[in-house]
Amino acid sequence: MTEIHALIDANREQFLEELKEYLRIPSISTLSEHNADVQRAAAWTAEQLRAAGLTHVQIMPTARHPVVYGEWLGAPGKPTVLIYGHYDVQPAELAAGWLSDPFAPEVRDGNLYARGASDDKGQVYVNIKAVQMLMQASGALPVNVKFLIEGEEEIGSPNLDGFIAAHQEWLRADVVVISDTAIQSLQQPSIVYGLRGLVYFELEVRGPERDLHSGGFGGTVHNPAQALCEIIAALHQPDGSVAVPGFYDKVRPLSAEERAAIAKTDISEAEWRRLTGAPQPWGEAGYTLRERVGARPTLEVNGIWGGFTGEGSKTVLPAKATAKISCRLVPDQDPHEIEALIRAQIARLAPPTVTWEMRALNHGYPALVPIDSLAMECAVRAYERGFGARPLFLREGGSIPVVATFMQTYRVPVLLVGYGLPDDGAHGPNEKFALECLYRGVHTAAALLEELGKRSPEALRSL
Amino acid sequence: MTEIHALIDANREQFLEELKEYLRIPSISTLSEHNADVQRAAAWTAEQLRAAGLTHVQIMPTARHPVVYGEWLGAPGKPTVLIYGHYDVQPAELAAGWLSDPFAPEVRDGNLYARGASDDKGQVYVNIKAVQMLMQASGALPVNVKFLIEGEEEIGSPNLDGFIAAHQEWLRADVVVISDTAIQSLQQPSIVYGLRGLVYFELEVRGPERDLHSGGFGGTVHNPAQALCEIIAALHQPDGSVAVPGFYDKVRPLSAEERAAIAKTDISEAEWRRLTGAPQPWGEAGYTLRERVGARPTLEVNGIWGGFTGEGSKTVLPAKATAKISCRLVPDQDPHEIEALIRAQIARLAPPTVTWEMRALNHGYPALVPIDSLAMECAVRAYERGFGARPLFLREGGSIPVVATFMQTYRVPVLLVGYGLPDDGAHGPNEKFALECLYRGVHTAAALLEELGKRSPEALRSL
Repeated sequence: MTEIHALIDANREQFLEELKEYLRIPSISTLSEHNADVQRAAAWTAEQLRAAGLTHVQIMPTARHPVVYGEWLGAPGKPTVLIYGHYDVQPAELAAGWLSDPFAPEVRDGNLYARGASDDKGQVYVNIKAVQMLMQASGALPVNVKFLIEGEEEIGSPNLDGFIAAHQEWLRADVVVISDTAIQSLQQPSIVYGLRGLVYFELEVRGPERDLHSGGFGGTVHNPAQALCEIIAALHQPDGSVAVPGFYDKVRPLSAEERAAIAKTDISEAEWRRLTGAPQPWGEAGYTLRERVGARPTLEVNGIWGGFTGEGSKTVLPAKATAKISCRLVPDQDPHEIEALIRAQIARLAPPTVTWEMRALNHGYPALVPIDSLAMECAVRAYERGFGARPLFLREGGSIPVVATFMQTYRVPVLLVGYGLPDDGAHGPNEKFALECLYRGVHTAAALLEELGKRSPEALRSL
Repeated sequence: MTEIHALIDANREQFLEELKEYLRIPSISTLSEHNADVQRAAAWTAEQLRAAGLTHVQIMPTARHPVVYGEWLGAPGKPTVLIYGHYDVQPAELAAGWLSDPFAPEVRDGNLYARGASDDKGQVYVNIKAVQMLMQASGALPVNVKFLIEGEEEIGSPNLDGFIAAHQEWLRADVVVISDTAIQSLQQPSIVYGLRGLVYFELEVRGPERDLHSGGFGGTVHNPAQALCEIIAALHQPDGSVAVPGFYDKVRPLSAEERAAIAKTDISEAEWRRLTGAPQPWGEAGYTLRERVGARPTLEVNGIWGGFTGEGSKTVLPAKATAKISCRLVPDQDPHEIEALIRAQIARLAPPTVTWEMRALNHGYPALVPIDSLAMECAVRAYERGFGARPLFLREGGSIPVVATFMQTYRVPVLLVGYGLPDDGAHGPNEKFALECLYRGVHTAAALLEELGKRSPEALRSL
């Protein structure tokens, strides 16, 4: 074991306590009442970057939540690595089924439970600690690093593309590292090479201009909650495919080779049941479970509300009903084009007995990272060193739109070197980060910087 | 003008101030945090009955909210009139579009705005004042009266049938008067002779055992919000009829005569638009607007919720979604039979990819009151005296299940002598009671007791 890895193991306790501090800050980016908490999380991130030995650490405002930046450029001639992550988190309500307060981190059975534990504070923290340990061990890093930690990932990064465009030269790097994904298991690490894009919108259906007595008007007014249900029901075919004309037109077909690779990582129905607790799989006919979440586009209802939702009965005919709906997209679907296709389909589906409005909330492009690059080899080697096994390559169902932005802006590899696990419960109750992922993660992240430092910048850049 | 009517006009100001007091009490029966307010409203009602000169005034507990009772039996040989109403109200949230606090009554343009103004505190108050004014004018009433004012009407009167059964002889009367309906307009009074029944239930659809990340599992899990929408969408046919096998089997067909009578009271599409603000009428093909709300059964979504309903975007796949759904029923539909038919249909519609639960919240029977009775003649005469016009006969869309209970228990006429207007906004925001309805209502209610006092008990009882 090299000095750096001994140092990492000696600091386990400190890592856990510090990460708990980070997780106590409810930096929920979508809820404006948490704006001050988002600011606190930015400040905490900046403080950590300084403690790790980075320079030019700064909290840079955007139109909404700030970006935290820090760098160490003391290795001229060596590759420059841009490390991206986010310090904001999803909403979390104790009542949604949390066994402990989502913002009072608690260790149970080797897991640290808290909102953001895995997505993404824990994984941001892993990278900061890797840098800090390398600096402590040798007073320098094997590569140049730039950290770009944003606070708007969970609301679709509305200001990030503009921020990158405005600071394009300053942020330039030979390779980008993002830790915001899951590996298959502690025994079987994996690297995500495909991510889905996203278009997220609200659909509001309006009927009467105010809530009405269901006895006085029911039967003559098209109930907006019913009309919304009718529209939503019509957005899928009975075979589970999305019923929006043109939706699949730009989907790049899966090659036989890709399907074979994905098949190696497919999960069984029993495993799917263990992870979801749902009675039976559902989805697009003709595709495996792993293909459905990773390689095929979807349309999901994320929320729905209208009328009386309190205790007991109220015989009201609601004035309106609203749903939050999002599509996960795959190459080469364009989120703006898909929004237009859905809008056109809703216009066809919506009856003249109601009015409706569709409000797009955010857009993200899908991305595929080539898996045969030199940079990817470094990531493979780092996992072998940190987890003791060769990683598989996976396409994931989630969306990290900035991956497409980085690839389009810099034409360099983007390595999705994640440390989460599939059952971490990101976005749901009881989100957790395995302590083993935390510790092995720091080892792997340090090993990755060491591996990247062995290559030339030019060689690493090649896709 | 007789002495009593002069007295009524002299007390207008007091009526308004007292009614405002009543309306300030948020006696929302469905929300348990308002239990103390419901008790306060019961006490206020009892105090008013005492002030009107009634005896044996008492607040009688039930399993949930109490019944207020009071009587005056000083006219032996004269008919006994049971006056029923309710002091509880529907929920009301300022944010639902109220222009003033629903529990801070405010007069604007000749209307008193507050939750319960029309449904039903204002109409209960009208009857109490009619009795009080008659007592003040002559020290006695032209009939014997019994008041039965309950606190659970807005939650489906779960304890009222049992209360009536337990006190059947004590509550016995020759005619029942209920003021909890609307007249067509101030110029055109109307008497409701048909009321719909009700079955109200919650339908909960469950998928995964916790909220999931829509990117990680979307496309393999049947989204419960989507599945709920699919079930709800399938509960109506494209022609607007209810798609539940057997639903219409016991519906008594409308006679040509009845349809002709209803046609006289039908509203135009323009009037319907003015009342609802909705873009276009909807509903069961082959029936007029008035038939759809009064004479045909319906199925309405009263509320729906699931997943993330906060500000912005959260890419969650919800664990469950729930809807509140109710049916308005017509003779001879049985609410318990209809519940079973709907349950069977949902069992057919629900896919094996989700689980579901249907929880019935309340049941009420529909009722039709014969319009050619002597008692009904008294009501017609009372409206002629109070509003200066002969009332039309209407079937109404709302439900007052106790009407069926009274008819079944005592085999006597139930007079639905209402003082609301169609645009009162019962159950919605900005509920109001026209001051003109309040004042003419007291005149009419007093006239009704005078008219009933001119008949023999036996003659009045005949249906």
